[in-house]
Amino acid sequence: MQILISEIKYWMTEAGEMIKTALFDDALTVDTKSERKDLVTNVDKIVQTYFAQKILAFDPKAKILGEENGQDHLNKWNGRVFIIDPIDGTMNFVLERENFCIMLAVYEEGQGILGFIYDVIKGQLLWGGRDIGVFLNEERVPQPANVSLKDGLLGMNAAMYARNSHNAQIMGDRAMGVRMSGCAGLELMGMALGRRVGYVSNLAPWDYAAGGVLIEALGMKMSHITGRKLKLDGRERFLAGTPSAYEEMLALSQQNDD
Amino acid sequence: MQILISEIKYWMTEAGEMIKTALFDDALTVDTKSERKDLVTNVDKIVQTYFAQKILAFDPKAKILGEENGQDHLNKWNGRVFIIDPIDGTMNFVLERENFCIMLAVYEEGQGILGFIYDVIKGQLLWGGRDIGVFLNEERVPQPANVSLKDGLLGMNAAMYARNSHNAQIMGDRAMGVRMSGCAGLELMGMALGRRVGYVSNLAPWDYAAGGVLIEALGMKMSHITGRKLKLDGRERFLAGTPSAYEEMLALSQQNDD
Repeated sequence: MQILISEIKYWMTEAGEMIKTALFDDALTVDTKSERKDLVTNVDKIVQTYFAQKILAFDPKAKILGEENGQDHLNKWNGRVFIIDPIDGTMNFVLERENFCIMLAVYEEGQGILGFIYDVIKGQLLWGGRDIGVFLNEERVPQPANVSLKDGLLGMNAAMYARNSHNAQIMGDRAMGVRMSGCAGLELMGMALGRRVGYVSNLAPWDYAAGGVLIEALGMKMSHITGRKLKLDGRERFLAGTPSAYEEMLALSQQNDD
Repeated sequence: MQILISEIKYWMTEAGEMIKTALFDDALTVDTKSERKDLVTNVDKIVQTYFAQKILAFDPKAKILGEENGQDHLNKWNGRVFIIDPIDGTMNFVLERENFCIMLAVYEEGQGILGFIYDVIKGQLLWGGRDIGVFLNEERVPQPANVSLKDGLLGMNAAMYARNSHNAQIMGDRAMGVRMSGCAGLELMGMALGRRVGYVSNLAPWDYAAGGVLIEALGMKMSHITGRKLKLDGRERFLAGTPSAYEEMLALSQQNDD
């Protein structure tokens, strides 16, 4: 496990340097995928390929699930699976040049073992797992207090908030405030660091796999917004929170099911 | 003018150190004002008092308009007026310990002359005015491109977005994405740095005075959301954008007036 962790940290750091170099050289090529707001850059693809090569050199039997390069679905979750988002928050990467992250999760026999979220611009790597605890760079992250919804900031998906899906607006009204950052990984990092009471969104597996391992290791909860287990397959309405905020939002979500 | 600018930069830096020390010492006392989400801390009040003392020592005839300590209204705008927000984004200050700023604007005979926005945690001071240009620390900020609404990120107020006030949801749909940071000063700094195409909110004078001077100096536009001039008196529905995005949002805002 220690060797695996050290390898992944090295890959994250090297991938971060590749991304910073591309930003510094102003060498981004931006394309769209499913629609005009669904962006991908040459850098997303290069970083995904970099991780795939490193992973398969380290563990030739491993499976890879990732946002780019067509590895976006898995039928069998046996053995070791690496779930990668080479750049989470690609729109922020292109338009803000900050507020994005690299994410990697390790699953074994269908269970999340390790999670890594790297805020490249801030130089902050959040990593850990259920059996080892959670660290920000090399400092142990304490378990956040079980803050109630009314006392914290709630990360939110814009479309769900606009449509009041699953009473998302009521959740936001009850919270101290609503925040939209455009980066799932940084919302989940915010939860781990006690800056968010929860997060409501519509996410693909690579958007929540790494953060999910980390927040669950810190005693926080996540599921499909209806309370069922997440399927790690395609986009799902996602709900996460401190135990208190999660229960309050889950009850609200079930009063309205659009 | 150069002496005034140097003085203000010194005050901003010293106030920033006071704020960082309070965070480091964990010495925050939080109270509410008009309602449970309207926070003020001991640090907001101390910093406001600090600025008032420095300003009146420098210019005994100056008037002060600010968020805290009851100096929140002015009848006459003749002479020199300093407009202060000691901590903009107090909720972020309390709950995130980042994503807040200090703001100061100088008005003379009713005209905005200088603006200063200091992101204390990032160590970024954006400052300048119509006659001198705009700088980030000591580096000149270029005029942002006239990006159209569809190609940029739009800063947004949660309540206006939830209620679709003035077609705020349609503005958000047309933009590349919606962002809610909880800090007006950082939204306007984002516009100045080309990271936002516009900003829609409900703001008091100290929320937009400094940023308004800076974005107008960079060729961007702002007004009441109906297009009339801002009154610098009480909360107003606020619209700002690149010339292209501003015109598109102004037209949308007038199709629906809640």
